[in-house]
Amino acid sequence: MTLFRQLYDTPTRRFTYLIGDPDSREAVAVDPTPEGIVLPLLAMVADFGLRLAYLLCTHAHEGEATAVPLMQSRTGARVVAGERAPIAADRQARHGDTLTFGNEVIHVLGTPGHTPACLSYLWRDRVFTGHSLLIRGCGRTDLTDGDAGTLFDSITLRLLMLPGDTLLFPGHETHGRTVSTIAEEREHNPCVAGRSRDEFITHRSSR
Amino acid sequence: MTLFRQLYDTPTRRFTYLIGDPDSREAVAVDPTPEGIVLPLLAMVADFGLRLAYLLCTHAHEGEATAVPLMQSRTGARVVAGERAPIAADRQARHGDTLTFGNEVIHVLGTPGHTPACLSYLWRDRVFTGHSLLIRGCGRTDLTDGDAGTLFDSITLRLLMLPGDTLLFPGHETHGRTVSTIAEEREHNPCVAGRSRDEFITHRSSR
Repeated sequence: MTLFRQLYDTPTRRFTYLIGDPDSREAVAVDPTPEGIVLPLLAMVADFGLRLAYLLCTHAHEGEATAVPLMQSRTGARVVAGERAPIAADRQARHGDTLTFGNEVIHVLGTPGHTPACLSYLWRDRVFTGHSLLIRGCGRTDLTDGDAGTLFDSITLRLLMLPGDTLLFPGHETHGRTVSTIAEEREHNPCVAGRSRDEFITHRSSR
Repeated sequence: MTLFRQLYDTPTRRFTYLIGDPDSREAVAVDPTPEGIVLPLLAMVADFGLRLAYLLCTHAHEGEATAVPLMQSRTGARVVAGERAPIAADRQARHGDTLTFGNEVIHVLGTPGHTPACLSYLWRDRVFTGHSLLIRGCGRTDLTDGDAGTLFDSITLRLLMLPGDTLLFPGHETHGRTVSTIAEEREHNPCVAGRSRDEFITHRSSR
């Protein structure tokens, strides 16, 4: 049975995800960014006898602390990030790319707006949206070359177009929720539900 | 599709769980104890159009703050707890009892030791263990009439005897993990893996 684990870092309110293929023992981690997640994540990888093939970064901010280089040096995994993301990537991925590990395939979705290089990753019926689409929220657009109109397009034309029962696993959460679905966010996400692109941009710039 | 959600309260490091039956719209919440979880949980119940039938308490400590009475008055749900648990329960449940809501059945497991009235709840392939069995850990036994030998028996004879692929959802977690399995805890839980009952008791009392 394919292994899937969600980890939460309390100080940064960020999620990290581990996906492991039991046959090949290959695994990927999505956003192993918080320093506090390194030891629990490495323990989990060791307990399951896995080898990390990829560290998938949804995004990065210039100058922000990140445990990704430490995880890279500790595991030998290849770092994947969007083009021009401010992180030392072994592979720059683009919308439409696929990544394989073991018997598993991950589809790369370009979801810029929070940053120009934001990516989301689709694995089976699960999408990892970083800080682009959150549970009942979305990423800020007033940092690091954020752009509200671009974010609206990414959310509505790329993420909310996925099948409704796709499980949404965000990169950040402050209200204790751990998962949502695309159908739920289409209906209940206050950033975009019933809101036009212009209204979204106006609301973002007024914050 | 049956709804299942895990919520995490950062200040208390506690989990709350919501299970909803989409046909009958009936739902239960396991350990809606942290005050910070009330609003996200009620919003979730409202978004899904659910009616809370039961609030399932794994345990309580005398004098400890709990949002269960507030949830009870806000929702009309019936509070379920172990016999002699220090909480105003509508139903005192015992090992072997079953609870039904909609088309779903929950099995009550008596798992005393952390407190004398601790319960765990088994739903399908998922067990909610409160503070009895944690991910790579177990509950304290130096509070509220805790008893180390009793806890060892509950963990080894009732919880770790469940099928290995049973998903373990604890009530508390400090290292960011969100789920484990019974098989994993049999092998890796440092409290009990490779440890005799006497060793467990000695180790507990030396802390």
